[in-house]
Parts: sequence; structure tokens; C-alpha cells
Amino acid sequence: MVTVVKIGGNVIDDPEALERFLDDFAALEGDKILVHGGGAVANKILHGLGVEPRMIDGRRVTDEQTLRIVAMVYAGWINKSVVADLQARGCNAVGLSGADGDVLRSVRRAAAPIDYGFVGDPVAVNVPFLEGLLSHGAAPVFCAITHDGAGSLLNTNADTVASTLAVAMGARLVYCFEKRGVLAADGEVVANLDEAGYAAMKARGEVFAGMIAKLDNVFAALRGGAAQVVVKHADDLLKDGTGTVCGRS
Amino acid sequence: MVTVVKIGGNVIDDPEALERFLDDFAALEGDKILVHGGGAVANKILHGLGVEPRMIDGRRVTDEQTLRIVAMVYAGWINKSVVADLQARGCNAVGLSGADGDVLRSVRRAAAPIDYGFVGDPVAVNVPFLEGLLSHGAAPVFCAITHDGAGSLLNTNADTVASTLAVAMGARLVYCFEKRGVLAADGEVVANLDEAGYAAMKARGEVFAGMIAKLDNVFAALRGGAAQVVVKHADDLLKDGTGTVCGRS
Repeated sequence: MVTVVKIGGNVIDDPEALERFLDDFAALEGDKILVHGGGAVANKILHGLGVEPRMIDGRRVTDEQTLRIVAMVYAGWINKSVVADLQARGCNAVGLSGADGDVLRSVRRAAAPIDYGFVGDPVAVNVPFLEGLLSHGAAPVFCAITHDGAGSLLNTNADTVASTLAVAMGARLVYCFEKRGVLAADGEVVANLDEAGYAAMKARGEVFAGMIAKLDNVFAALRGGAAQVVVKHADDLLKDGTGTVCGRS
Repeated sequence: MVTVVKIGGNVIDDPEALERFLDDFAALEGDKILVHGGGAVANKILHGLGVEPRMIDGRRVTDEQTLRIVAMVYAGWINKSVVADLQARGCNAVGLSGADGDVLRSVRRAAAPIDYGFVGDPVAVNVPFLEGLLSHGAAPVFCAITHDGAGSLLNTNADTVASTLAVAMGARLVYCFEKRGVLAADGEVVANLDEAGYAAMKARGEVFAGMIAKLDNVFAALRGGAAQVVVKHADDLLKDGTGTVCGRS
């Protein structure tokens, strides 16, 4: 079975945490795919070039200039640095945007009610292309840049890229981030969570904006056919019995 | 036979010329590989971020900050834009740096007599990986960023990337740029050029710095085993009988 691992921007921004994580990812057995977020680098470059990042409800508005810069940072510097670092660990990584091999095609989000600009929602995965890479022992490494098939690159949510790939590949999905999992009100990790439990936590106000977006992706992936989804700390990738195992009800 | 086509920075910088070229590249029959240069975008971004480009003898000195920015621009924006544009033309492009699939490994150039920084000279091509992509109908698209296998990306001359790939693949190599070919003193295109003819032109002072670097790559490729090398205008890719056909003496 394929494992899709998503690593968040907080880990990308922390060189030591990233090194530890890449050690573990390189050591992970079996077919594997990495999806990485963007981190704070893009905002730094945007600031440096005098482009003020614009957010609505915590989501970036991607105008043409911003698209150019996030494509540079995500697909250029971060993606290729991670690939080179994995190669140095003996993991035959292949960096991909959605345009490469037409591997992940998106549709630009409608301009109403809110125009997020060059932002796309995934619609098609080129599964044979990914299977070809995996069968040669390669580990695809995705940035969260996709394309529309008509020449436009599109900025895409990295959690959604990961869940889309996990559904298409019938894969196990691991969301790695800076917490130990989904946390209950008492701060303890919720070991198992199904949709009913998630709904109850939401009703009790125990999960907040960023986590809701992530868990919506988690349960969409499970409903779509992902084999299993685990939410855990980036340091715990290889540690069984850690994090929150999410399942269908 | 594989055709390796190299497109220079002048074409990358001219949106209309680039569109025309990509139409032609998409229409080119048979297995094909594209290598693109960087263009002026990197210098604009460097300026924008307050990093002053430093050149010695027309070659860029690549410090760590510059490496980060050229990797962003070449592997991020230019490479992914070209790939998305080729996908829109029905050409199944796959963008690559040398780190992806360990496809082009380099050795960092010695710091003496001149320290060019993070600059690499190619030493190994992963031919089976490229053959795998080509056999699936994909067209690899290379930027001129390679890696050392130990975690460092390296800035590499795009002409050299193209000649290295052509040698490894026993390919036909086409250098596309903004002139109609190698020009004689009277301004006419030299239709055929061998090493003796090139030496004579150099002795007569008819070829200059930029062209000498390119033709040195041309004859290195031919000596190494490239099937044929043609130097021509980017608008002439599909036009037989144009440009300068270079051959072994």
C-alpha cells in the first residue's frame, strides 16, 4: 500500500525539525509520496518584493504576481531543496507540481462569493504516471501548485493535494504537523476519531478553524476511499501508536 | 532517436517568441527533451530583493542567497510555466532539476582559481530514469539546476546540461537561440561546421565569447557521442535546412 505523507509549513520553516522529518521519511518502508506546504518563506519573499500578502478568512488571495512568487518558492526552492535532501539520504525523490506529467489537474475556483484569484481545487490525478514512478522505486514529492490544463498554474491547499492523492491511490494518509494529534479539551491526544466523534467535538467547540479545515480533508479522504488517515506530530512519523487514527464511523 | 532541444534565455524573456517556440516544440515528432536557460527574470528578482548580481568573465557568482533565488526562478517559475504551457498544447511535459530522480548529478567546481560558489559541472546522467519517462510518452523539461548528491543544489550552465544529456542519450542536439546559426564574417549562416572550420574561424577572430562557449559545448557533445548538433534560430526548430549543422571533422 502507498503511504501519502503531508508535512506542514511549520516544519518546513524549522530546519532542524525538517532534517529529523526527512530522516524518517527516507526510512519509511514501502511506496510513499510526500506533499509539502509552503511555510513562511513565500511571505518573506513577497514582502521583500513589495507585494503585500492579502488574506481572506485565513486564505491567501493569489493575484498574478503572488502566483509567480508562490510557484517560485514552493515548486522551486522548497521542493528542490527537499528533493536534494532526500537524495542525500538515499531516497530517490522526484519533485512534482500538478503540471508535471499532468499529474494533478485543478479547476480554478469561482470568483464568487470571494475571488481568491489563481487558486484551484483538484479534479483529476494521473494515477498511471504516479504508479510508473513508484514502480521504479521513486518517491514523488509534491508542492501545492497545480495546473488547469490550459496553461495556468494554480495555488492549491496542500492538505487538499494530499487527500486527493490518497483517495486516487487508495493510500494510507498521514498528516504530520506540530501537534501530537487531535487534542481533546483536556489536552490529551484523541487516539481514535470517527465522523460522529468529530461532529461532537465541533459541537462542543473543541476544534478550531485550522484544525476544522484539516479534519474536513481527513473525512473527505476517508469517504473518498483513502485506506486510513492518521494525524500526528512530524517527529512521530515512524512511531506506531502515536497521533489520532481517523476512521469512517 | 531522442532530440535534445536547448532554448536560451533571450527566448524565455520574450513571451511571443516563447509561445511560437513552444508550439513548435510540442509539434516536434519523436522522443524529445527540452533544456531551458534562465533569462533576465533572476536578475530582476535579485535586484528586487537587494542582492546585487556578481559576474566574473560573464559568469554568475552563485552565493547561497543567489542559489536560492536562481533555484526559485529557474526550477519554480520558469520551469513550471513552460511545463503548464506545453501541457496546454497536448505535450506531456515533466519538469526536472538534476535532483529529481537523481537525473543529473554534478560536482561543485573547485574554488580556485576563481570561486564561482554553488556552481556545478555535470558528472552523471540517470539514463534509465529518462528512458522510463520517454517510454511513457513524456517530454522531460530541464532547468539548469543540478545537485551534488549530498544535499546541495548547484547552478549549472544550461548549454552544458543540454550537451551532457545529448551525449548520455546518444541524441540529436539542437541549440535554439536568437541568431540564425553560426554567422560568417559576411553575416551569412555557416551551413556546415566541423572542428577544423571552427578552429579557423576562431583564428580569424570571427567568433566571440558567448559563441565560443556554445561551440565548445557543441564539439564536446560531438566528441562525446551526440548524434548531431545543429545551432539555429528558435523560430526555425521545425524548418529543415536551417541553421548550422555541426559535425566531427
